[in-house]
Amino acid sequence: MRLVIRNGTVLTSTGALSADVVVEGEQVTALAARDSGLTDAWQQNADRVLDATGKYVLPGGIDVHTHMEMPFGGTESHDTFETGTRAAAWGGTTTIIDFAVQTKGTSLLSTLDKWHAKADGNCAIDYGFHMIVSDVNDTTLKEMDACVEAGVNSFKMFMAYPGVLYSTDGEIVQAMYRAAGNGAMIMMHAENGIAIDQLVAQALANGRTEPLQHGITRPPELEGEATHRAIRLAGVTGAPLYIVHLSASQALDAVTAARDEGRNVFAETCPQYLYLSLEDLGRPGFEGAKYVCSPPLRPAEHQRDLWRGLRTNDLSIVATDHCPFCFKDQKELGRDDFSKIPNGLPGVEHRMDLIHQGVVAGELSLARWVEVTSTTPARMFGLYPRKGTIAPGSDADIVVYDPQARQTLSAATHHMNVDYSVYEGMEITGRVETVLSRGRVVLEGGEFHGSRGHGRFLERELCQYLS
Amino acid sequence: MRLVIRNGTVLTSTGALSADVVVEGEQVTALAARDSGLTDAWQQNADRVLDATGKYVLPGGIDVHTHMEMPFGGTESHDTFETGTRAAAWGGTTTIIDFAVQTKGTSLLSTLDKWHAKADGNCAIDYGFHMIVSDVNDTTLKEMDACVEAGVNSFKMFMAYPGVLYSTDGEIVQAMYRAAGNGAMIMMHAENGIAIDQLVAQALANGRTEPLQHGITRPPELEGEATHRAIRLAGVTGAPLYIVHLSASQALDAVTAARDEGRNVFAETCPQYLYLSLEDLGRPGFEGAKYVCSPPLRPAEHQRDLWRGLRTNDLSIVATDHCPFCFKDQKELGRDDFSKIPNGLPGVEHRMDLIHQGVVAGELSLARWVEVTSTTPARMFGLYPRKGTIAPGSDADIVVYDPQARQTLSAATHHMNVDYSVYEGMEITGRVETVLSRGRVVLEGGEFHGSRGHGRFLERELCQYLS
Amino acid sequence: MRLVIRNGTVLTSTGALSADVVVEGEQVTALAARDSGLTDAWQQNADRVLDATGKYVLPGGIDVHTHMEMPFGGTESHDTFETGTRAAAWGGTTTIIDFAVQTKGTSLLSTLDKWHAKADGNCAIDYGFHMIVSDVNDTTLKEMDACVEAGVNSFKMFMAYPGVLYSTDGEIVQAMYRAAGNGAMIMMHAENGIAIDQLVAQALANGRTEPLQHGITRPPELEGEATHRAIRLAGVTGAPLYIVHLSASQALDAVTAARDEGRNVFAETCPQYLYLSLEDLGRPGFEGAKYVCSPPLRPAEHQRDLWRGLRTNDLSIVATDHCPFCFKDQKELGRDDFSKIPNGLPGVEHRMDLIHQGVVAGELSLARWVEVTSTTPARMFGLYPRKGTIAPGSDADIVVYDPQARQTLSAATHHMNVDYSVYEGMEITGRVETVLSRGRVVLEGGEFHGSRGHGRFLERELCQYLS
Amino acid sequence: MRLVIRNGTVLTSTGALSADVVVEGEQVTALAARDSGLTDAWQQNADRVLDATGKYVLPGGIDVHTHMEMPFGGTESHDTFETGTRAAAWGGTTTIIDFAVQTKGTSLLSTLDKWHAKADGNCAIDYGFHMIVSDVNDTTLKEMDACVEAGVNSFKMFMAYPGVLYSTDGEIVQAMYRAAGNGAMIMMHAENGIAIDQLVAQALANGRTEPLQHGITRPPELEGEATHRAIRLAGVTGAPLYIVHLSASQALDAVTAARDEGRNVFAETCPQYLYLSLEDLGRPGFEGAKYVCSPPLRPAEHQRDLWRGLRTNDLSIVATDHCPFCFKDQKELGRDDFSKIPNGLPGVEHRMDLIHQGVVAGELSLARWVEVTSTTPARMFGLYPRKGTIAPGSDADIVVYDPQARQTLSAATHHMNVDYSVYEGMEITGRVETVLSRGRVVLEGGEFHGSRGHGRFLERELCQYLS
Repeated sequence: MRLVIRNGTVLTSTGALSADVVVEGEQVTALAARDSGLTDAWQQNADRVLDATGKYVLPGGIDVHTHMEMPFGGTESHDTFETGTRAAAWGGTTTIIDFAVQTKGTSLLSTLDKWHAKADGNCAIDYGFHMIVSDVNDTTLKEMDACVEAGVNSFKMFMAYPGVLYSTDGEIVQAMYRAAGNGAMIMMHAENGIAIDQLVAQALANGRTEPLQHGITRPPELEGEATHRAIRLAGVTGAPLYIVHLSASQALDAVTAARDEGRNVFAETCPQYLYLSLEDLGRPGFEGAKYVCSPPLRPAEHQRDLWRGLRTNDLSIVATDHCPFCFKDQKELGRDDFSKIPNGLPGVEHRMDLIHQGVVAGELSLARWVEVTSTTPARMFGLYPRKGTIAPGSDADIVVYDPQARQTLSAATHHMNVDYSVYEGMEITGRVETVLSRGRVVLEGGEFHGSRGHGRFLERELCQYLS
Repeated sequence: MRLVIRNGTVLTSTGALSADVVVEGEQVTALAARDSGLTDAWQQNADRVLDATGKYVLPGGIDVHTHMEMPFGGTESHDTFETGTRAAAWGGTTTIIDFAVQTKGTSLLSTLDKWHAKADGNCAIDYGFHMIVSDVNDTTLKEMDACVEAGVNSFKMFMAYPGVLYSTDGEIVQAMYRAAGNGAMIMMHAENGIAIDQLVAQALANGRTEPLQHGITRPPELEGEATHRAIRLAGVTGAPLYIVHLSASQALDAVTAARDEGRNVFAETCPQYLYLSLEDLGRPGFEGAKYVCSPPLRPAEHQRDLWRGLRTNDLSIVATDHCPFCFKDQKELGRDDFSKIPNGLPGVEHRMDLIHQGVVAGELSLARWVEVTSTTPARMFGLYPRKGTIAPGSDADIVVYDPQARQTLSAATHHMNVDYSVYEGMEITGRVETVLSRGRVVLEGGEFHGSRGHGRFLERELCQYLS
Repeated sequence: MRLVIRNGTVLTSTGALSADVVVEGEQVTALAARDSGLTDAWQQNADRVLDATGKYVLPGGIDVHTHMEMPFGGTESHDTFETGTRAAAWGGTTTIIDFAVQTKGTSLLSTLDKWHAKADGNCAIDYGFHMIVSDVNDTTLKEMDACVEAGVNSFKMFMAYPGVLYSTDGEIVQAMYRAAGNGAMIMMHAENGIAIDQLVAQALANGRTEPLQHGITRPPELEGEATHRAIRLAGVTGAPLYIVHLSASQALDAVTAARDEGRNVFAETCPQYLYLSLEDLGRPGFEGAKYVCSPPLRPAEHQRDLWRGLRTNDLSIVATDHCPFCFKDQKELGRDDFSKIPNGLPGVEHRMDLIHQGVVAGELSLARWVEVTSTTPARMFGLYPRKGTIAPGSDADIVVYDPQARQTLSAATHHMNVDYSVYEGMEITGRVETVLSRGRVVLEGGEFHGSRGHGRFLERELCQYLS
Repeated sequence: MRLVIRNGTVLTSTGALSADVVVEGEQVTALAARDSGLTDAWQQNADRVLDATGKYVLPGGIDVHTHMEMPFGGTESHDTFETGTRAAAWGGTTTIIDFAVQTKGTSLLSTLDKWHAKADGNCAIDYGFHMIVSDVNDTTLKEMDACVEAGVNSFKMFMAYPGVLYSTDGEIVQAMYRAAGNGAMIMMHAENGIAIDQLVAQALANGRTEPLQHGITRPPELEGEATHRAIRLAGVTGAPLYIVHLSASQALDAVTAARDEGRNVFAETCPQYLYLSLEDLGRPGFEGAKYVCSPPLRPAEHQRDLWRGLRTNDLSIVATDHCPFCFKDQKELGRDDFSKIPNGLPGVEHRMDLIHQGVVAGELSLARWVEVTSTTPARMFGLYPRKGTIAPGSDADIVVYDPQARQTLSAATHHMNVDYSVYEGMEITGRVETVLSRGRVVLEGGEFHGSRGHGRFLERELCQYLS
């Protein structure tokens, strides 16, 4: 099967090209100058020619932070690997990296097996795993090496959620030393959960149970503090560090300072922190529950700093932290106690559009759009050049994007398995038109053509940014 | 004429690919996966097949800071556009951007004409111009717009060299406002020349005439000061700013802080600041004169910070500030007075090798090597994607580089028109093997196959990094 | 003559004491515990007993920045040494340090003679001089030593006012080297006057002539820049540096950073920058002219930073930069051109009250009030412990202050020789009740009892803060 | 009883005075100018005249950080309140503030009672208490208010020593909120003990048991981290914060940044961090055990920063953390395991001399010597002006100091109850000659004239620096 994409503007992380793209089987086999004549020859042998006149042709998005069917607080995030990866494909994302979650008392490898079992045969697009470490002991530490061997070389730890996912600084140090030895990345949920739990207890003791308290009791200073602490622990141990879902200016300052010193410290932010704010958490009634995630949405002035960080590469990646819970029955668990609201927002479907909207608004360049949503994720997590670029030999994960189209985001039209949208009614310029996953057209003409089980597990190499 | 480069490792600013490259006429027309079969077909129609097994195939180097046949202190830099561009080609650089130098009392456009006359028909490789502004007045300011129209959209000013090239802060402000209006870049030689001249006068008054005083009287603090000042003036006026030949940690700190704030501030450093030091200026006898350039070489501890800056992109580009003066007759002008030693070092030939040596030493990644020597220069100065990448439609400026070869730098073997080398005896791993300039093989088999006049003037677009 | 002040709360720069003060002749000869019985004995021998029950007894204010009868732009500041020092006494200030102004082509020593002639026999309170250096040459440099010998050991230079008071960075470097050698302090008016003049020219060229433009064309960034530059030049030369009339957050940041490094860098601010703002410059009609001083009043958000700086000692002193011009005939010179408005505000009378108002508002402690208005000025400029404290052996410069009194500032009631008040209508809690200058009661019962010529010239020692 | 000290140079925190001091009973009742004649009159009525010609007369030292007879690791610090306060007096310290140590399961008030019982009737000089909180619960929190009422308004917490004195960030937050409410100071031992314990475990697992490991396993980064964290927690809760025994540049940087922002953050350092270094911990054999304290001694380059911090007031106080353990039987407990060496050094006797030595070496001014050892401690901990100054009404805690005397520190001659000196053989310029405690001569002529039980408990007011 040979497919040729003609007349589009191919976007890379360094700029735009007028080039045609040849796909054979699952891979890109060639790029040719638009007027070179080579494409004409190819076209004659092509099974399919896709005309991309006036469109962007860009590498499929890579969302390195999703939580499909993840257990949390007695319930489970509402997208399965099947529904979640399908929604991702709808939004131009062709790779996700999800999190396998070790629970205390279990092993990393059995956890990995369990997550393979969840995903295997169910995904519409390719996927990899990070491992969440919540029980640091000798076995766990040894298994970290085995995970690296198995292509799972990034280990997330939590400075929040005491009693559940939380690791002490001592446990973090142990895992970091292991990572420093085997080349793995430590990913960090950086909020001072011990202090936060105290603030939560005080708020509840004072009868403050509404969703807004979720934001008030997790102040930006405590994200900044934990980020700084994680950076120091990484400095002592020599481990690379990746701060997930950075939301606060204070945390960004800590990352910026570390990067200025040339440390192996990286960070991602998420669209919700770029577009939503603490005010959403304070919506009347129980509406704010829809916006409960951790770290919480911040006062709007943090957004400007985050966009700045994306421009200056102090924020290297935009991921979604997609972790959807339905309003009904799930978010409602916290109706009388904000601390019982499941933490997480739906978002995997809208990342490419929302960051393109940043391009429209003048916040980022087109090249940077591709870089933060695809190329850097691939380089950061050992998938490049297989993923993250349109280049000879790369997987043919390709999005044809119409930059002029207009759309309105809504739960009524989205494909995530959740009963509300945090972006309800938001108007976007630009829209995914066609999506290829490893050479197969999975989205076209407003219809999904992919299939459950097409997506394959990705064994990843180590991070390509370490110095 | 069709040429195919097979079996090499194609380097881009984001990583390495196993790909073959098709060149037709002056351009790259296609890249294909090595094992895709497409190359086989092309090869049959090719006039020439270049086997690059075990070699890097990278975009030709772009040196954005050279001074060919430049008047300075009553003499002239010793490389002509002919000899200098030929030496550049020997070293894997296929584009230079040289400086047209307005002298007081003359116009920008006549200056540009004059420099076109110097370069036209003489260059072995493509070239562009920046404009040095040394006489700010209403005519000059208007002519800046005309220069931008003519593809010369970067204007260098000097905070040093009072009475010659120096501009006052008021003149800088005027030019910056113009640049803020027409999209041009202000490039700055950032040393506090007014204070420096006082230190020089005192040293001479104290009978200190030896070359080392050149370094002592231009302390790093005064580069840091001027860099900070230039950034503030750019902030007030809204102009983009590019700091040339940054040499000192203090200046890097100022740039880093500005970039952390998201300002349009950029900087380059040069190989001499990464490898040479103030100790070289203090070599016995008059030997130190060979190392006189401005800013001066710094104490060795600055080098570590500069490499850090290259890694973190606070230094975006490595250029050479190539400005060679022969030791005999030229450097000797300052035998009795260090302030009369012509300022400048030869270097255009060695940049690619010296930064590759940084890769060998673990300072930079291969991708970053390509980025700081080619891709970023092209994006910064409006040449991308015509230059700075190997991509369909790009000019076929290509270097085949042997990463295993060993060479020793020496005036006995270099091709610059100057009687000494600042890197005499330095051993390098890696060597340029073949060079294409716009599709033509200009270097191969240790012989120069280019020709005077092959190189063309490049009208440049605006900087692609502005936000 | 023996005078005893009983039952007051004696304020020092470290706190409050319940103590009685004995004055004999011109000096404080003893302090005694209020209930010690010693005072009783003294009182019997006293010529005068002053009851200070419920009052503060504090060292007389020291205003280290005044300009009496100073030539500026073709006119002269409207307070003479007679009227100005009388107004100072009314406000609880018992020492001023005024500026002798070298004009180009004249010598420092003749300048000093000239200023001695202006002040001698005219002052109501003691006074010293700083020297403004505006013509740096070999003679001037040598005379700096002679000035130090003569008790004038602080030399003010201007980075603003090109063509008048401006010194180049090279001249500054020369004077700084001299100061580094003889222990003198370099005082700096830190605004980038060269850049500012360009902004002024552009504003006028655009027909913007109103007073507000005075503030717009002297942006805070250019004060920050010049402050930073002065600090770097001081670093290179080893001179102590004192930034006068610091008004902008950016300048404060530069000073703070320098002080964090332990450098001999100090700064003062003025009441106008703590209470007035750019909005005052923009008052309707020509009213804004009343508020024209340099640096200009800043947007109100700078005030918070300045108060912070006073608390943290990054701002060590509050002085007034008292330089009054009448609205009529003087400020009016710039009715058609803001650049012709004489720069300066009246203020010497209100400093003690205005900073006490900061105590009332919770910005500063009582101890800090005394410290920034009296003790630190004395220590900074070599007058301590003769001035700046109430201690045995000190000059009996004493203020009895009623912290409960209320007053309203107004041109109708002030004693400065100027026809308007920048604080017109402002309500103040606290009021000077009695003032002693070298043991003589010069203000009491709302009447001035001092006399022209009572004040003596103070030969000053070197700064006591240098490390 | 009336005593007059004549002809000395009275030192205050702002400078030196030529003044005579009158002491009546326990208090200073007057100061008089040396030549005023007043002293003559007094002298006639004096019981005792002390001639201080050529000597400094300064307020008695206040050591705000001592641990007399403190339980630690199964043993007890070897100075009792009797021996320790006597040694303090020998060294010119006339007030200590010691720590009452809550053990888990006990109440604050019973702890206070216990410590009163230890000290009452045993001290040679006056003393106060801080309270160490190690068991945060509702009772403890309520008792904090009662402690404040009882004149114990500073509460120390530990981020180190898990399982013993350690408090979690949540517990710290609770105590800080209480302090923010009742005006108390939170004092912090800022080392990340959780991470450190992991490093210790690893070192021991690797067979590294020697004393040097104490320093290696407690790296400066982890003091910097904890200091930063404490500052953030204080920021969230609004509590004033005082960092005890700051030893590392990284911690100083955190304090400096906080103070630049105007926060209520303060810090002390100790003489051992100014004079001793990590090299001492690495002395041959088990000698290093003598130098085991926490935080540990640092590489020598930290010392320069600490002296800088003392000059700039980022370090406000020098205290000793006096906590002596004999080498024999006590330090030896850790012969096979560095983690079992009792943490602490002797020092209460040498603080005044060691900081005077800093004056001799040009690190500090005389005024600053008095400020960091006496005046600031008094103001910080609510004892001023009763203590910390020589002023009418103050307690007559006075030291007559001979600045020319020479002495050599040694265990053979010191008066602390411990069998070694960390300063063995160190030569000092300056020596305490006479000491008064509340008007009583307790040291004179090289003999101790004080008595057990003379010292009284000091109920303290709140900190006088809060803004």
